[in-house]
Parts: sequence; structure tokens; C-alpha cells
Amino acid sequence: MEDTVTNAEKHLGQFCSMLAAYTRKTAQVRDKADRLVRQLTDFANTEHPEMRATLRSFAEDLAKVQDYRQAEVERLETKVISPLKLYGAHIKQTRAEIKKLKQVQKNEIKQLAKLGRLRQKSPSDRLTISQAETSVQRASADASHTTHQLGETIEAFQKRKLTDLQKIFSDFVTIEMVLHAKAVEVYSSAFQTLENYDPERDLEDFRAKMHGLYGHRDAQPLTETISSPAVPWSLTGQSAQTALRGERREDEETMEASAEEDLRGRGRALHQ
Amino acid sequence: MEDTVTNAEKHLGQFCSMLAAYTRKTAQVRDKADRLVRQLTDFANTEHPEMRATLRSFAEDLAKVQDYRQAEVERLETKVISPLKLYGAHIKQTRAEIKKLKQVQKNEIKQLAKLGRLRQKSPSDRLTISQAETSVQRASADASHTTHQLGETIEAFQKRKLTDLQKIFSDFVTIEMVLHAKAVEVYSSAFQTLENYDPERDLEDFRAKMHGLYGHRDAQPLTETISSPAVPWSLTGQSAQTALRGERREDEETMEASAEEDLRGRGRALHQ
Repeated sequence: MEDTVTNAEKHLGQFCSMLAAYTRKTAQVRDKADRLVRQLTDFANTEHPEMRATLRSFAEDLAKVQDYRQAEVERLETKVISPLKLYGAHIKQTRAEIKKLKQVQKNEIKQLAKLGRLRQKSPSDRLTISQAETSVQRASADASHTTHQLGETIEAFQKRKLTDLQKIFSDFVTIEMVLHAKAVEVYSSAFQTLENYDPERDLEDFRAKMHGLYGHRDAQPLTETISSPAVPWSLTGQSAQTALRGERREDEETMEASAEEDLRGRGRALHQ
Repeated sequence: MEDTVTNAEKHLGQFCSMLAAYTRKTAQVRDKADRLVRQLTDFANTEHPEMRATLRSFAEDLAKVQDYRQAEVERLETKVISPLKLYGAHIKQTRAEIKKLKQVQKNEIKQLAKLGRLRQKSPSDRLTISQAETSVQRASADASHTTHQLGETIEAFQKRKLTDLQKIFSDFVTIEMVLHAKAVEVYSSAFQTLENYDPERDLEDFRAKMHGLYGHRDAQPLTETISSPAVPWSLTGQSAQTALRGERREDEETMEASAEEDLRGRGRALHQ
């Protein structure tokens, strides 16, 4: 009987701390994924429009999974860890009842021993022996009653333990299932978004910007201007330098324009 | 152009370390769950047959999920973290090419400046000026060629980055999806096992053992023997003591028998 309670105390306590550790680690996975979400959003803002939209969508899906993970953590705490913690008090109560029985049993044995001694020492002292017999009778009745009562208490403890464990582990499985099912759903959509991404449009955008920066030089190479023998060297030299400076200014303008476009693009995407 | 590479270096490096942290935490969740599996198995061995079978089945399912989690961890390392790590070398190479271009560009400007100085200082030194003009020509041709080449390199870098990111994040999502889908499958079966558990049969088993331990006392209460007035007190007292001792021995035998039965029960369950 005591083993039933001691065993339950030991194991349910360990389940409680192990499930708490499992839940804490799950919360840490959520934290790491949350950091990844922020990083993806930051990176998205530096990318070309298509990749930007794709990464933002992916980051949102990843964030959704973390919301489900957060719900998992909260539900594990409420429906799994808390009920296991409550067993502490429940077991304490059952232990107190066992202690009570043991004292009642000890009392019966004590009274019996007392009666035995009296019969040996003073077999003729009818009054004292009679009183001792009454005490034994009372102690035995108490012990019998308490034993019966404790049997019922232990059975109730065992029944509650079995049904509670069934409930707690079922809840654990249900909570985990909900997370995993939701994650499958969200990641399926994330997978589609990533599959649909076509880098070609971003590369066109990239080429257009590259052309803005370096296109003029390719179209009008310096070498031709310089090598033309019809133009005086001094003028050629100057024009080459001017052309270079002119290009620089144009480059700066192109960069500014594309930066503005980029900001507008971000604004739109943020308000979408 | 340099921003493209610097930005990629910064962000891909961060993705790499964040995904590595995510993977490490996932491995720790697996470790905590593995400990829970062992604890469940230990506890199952101390339980009644039905609960024992239920807990063992649950522990096996939980272990299966951890096997899938282990596969998740390994696949994240191979298909997500490793490719991101490889970017380190790739970016280094691209950086070296940018450095090369910058030197070629600097050389063009240097040659142009030299030619300008020569024209101011010694406008009549036709030979030296002609040599300087040839140098400018060569440097300009080099710069034009290298700029074109670098444009292609950067575009290839950008293209590879975009398709690799698409691939890496798709792989991440696929790996996660496989884990979650398998977990849903395994936990569905675990849920059924837990739902099918009926504590009643274990409670009958428990009651039978309790009866073995305390049944005799209930059937033949000490109080009746003691309170019988037809039997002399001394004899009654002795018989009560003998009866108590007799019961103790019986109790011990019952406990040994049930312990043996329990061991046989375990043996069977282990060989099932």
C-alpha cells in the first residue's frame, strides 16, 4: 500500500519535472524561430520585390507556427504540468492517512502486549485485566475500521492515479497533435509560396539597376574616344575626364532614384 | 555591387547561425523527450498489466517521434546549415573579384592623371606623352573589360543567391513538414491507445491483491473472537495473538505470490 503511494510520488514527480523541461526546451525552439522570423523580415527589406514578398510570406508562416508553439507551451503548462504538480498535495494527504493507520495498528499491538504482560504478572487482578481486554477490543475495532477505510482510500488513490495519468497523457498527445497538424497546414502553404518564386523577375530588376550603373560605359567606351586621331589629345583627354565625371553624377542619380523606388516599394509592401 | 555581396554575407551568415541554434534546441527537445520515454518505461514496469501495456505503447510512440526529430536535426544540418556555411567561401571569392576591379579602375584614373600632368609640364615631349596615352588606352580597355566581367560575376552571384535561398528555405519547410506529418500520424495512434485504456481491469487486479493482503482480517475480525464471552479470556487472548501472527504469515505469503505473479507478468510483456 505504501509502495503504491511512494512509487506514484517518485514517478509522477519525475514526469512533472521532465515534462516541464520538455516544455522549456520547446519554448526555446520558439524563441530561436522568432529570431529567425525577425532576421528574415530584415533581409526581405534589402531584397528585390519578388524575393521580398516571398521572404515576408515565409516569415509570416514561420511566425504562425511559433504562435501555435506558444499555444502548445501554454497548454502543456495548464493541462499537463499543473495537474502533475497538484499530485504533490494529493500524495501528502494519502501519506497522512497511511500514517494514521500505522498508529492505530501499533496501538492494537501495544494493547495486546499490555494484556499479555498483565496476565503473566497478575493473573488474579480481574479488574485490570478486564480493563485491558476492553482496550484491546477497542483498539482492534479501530484497527479493523481504519484498515477498511484505508483500503478504500488507497483504491480511490489508485483509481484517480490511473484515470488522471490516462487524461494527462491523452492531453499531452492532443496538444502535440494540434501543434503538428497546424504546422503541416502552415508549412504546406509556405512551401507553395517558395515553390512559386521565380528569380527571373528579380534578376531583370537587378540587371536594370546594373545597367543604370554601368550601361553608359559599355555603350560609349573611353578607349574609342581616346584613340580617335581626328580630335586633339588635350580635348580628348578633357572630354574623357568630363565623361567619367558625368557618368559618376548619372550613376549617383540612378542610385538615388532606385533607392527612392525601393523605399516606395517597401511602403507599398508594408501597407499590403 | 559591393553592397549586394556585403549584405548577402551578413544575412546569410546570420541565417546560418540562427538555423544552427534552432536545430540545437530541437535536438535538446529530442533529448528531453528521450528521458521521458525512459521514465515512462520504468514506470510502466511498476504498473498493473493494462496500464503497463498502455504506457509501453505510449513510450514507443513517443520514441518514434524522437526518431523523426533526430532525422529532422540531421537533415537540417545537411540540407540547410551546410549550404549556408558554404556561402562563406563563395562570398570570399566574389569579394576578391571586386577588389581586382577596384584596382583596375584606380589604375585608369592614375594613368589619366599622369597624362594630364605630362601635358601641363612638358607639352612638347611628344614621345613621353604618346607613351602615357598608350598607357591610358590600355588601362581604359582593362577597366571596361573588367567592369563587364564583374557585372557578369555579380549577376551570377545574385542569381545563385536567389535560387539557393529558395532551395534552402524550401528544404527547411519540407524537412519540418515531414517531421510534423509523421508526428501527427504517430500521435494519432498513441491517442487511440490511451483512449482505449480502461482502468477498471487494473483496479480489479489491484482489488484482488488488496484482498489478498487485507481480506482475511475483514472476513474474521479480531473483535468477534475477543468479545466472545463463551471462551475463557486467557485462551481468547492467546488465540487472538496466534490469529494475528497467522495472518501476518499469510499476508507475507500472499505478497510473495503476487510479487512472483507480477514478475511473470513483466516477463510476458517483455517477450510480447
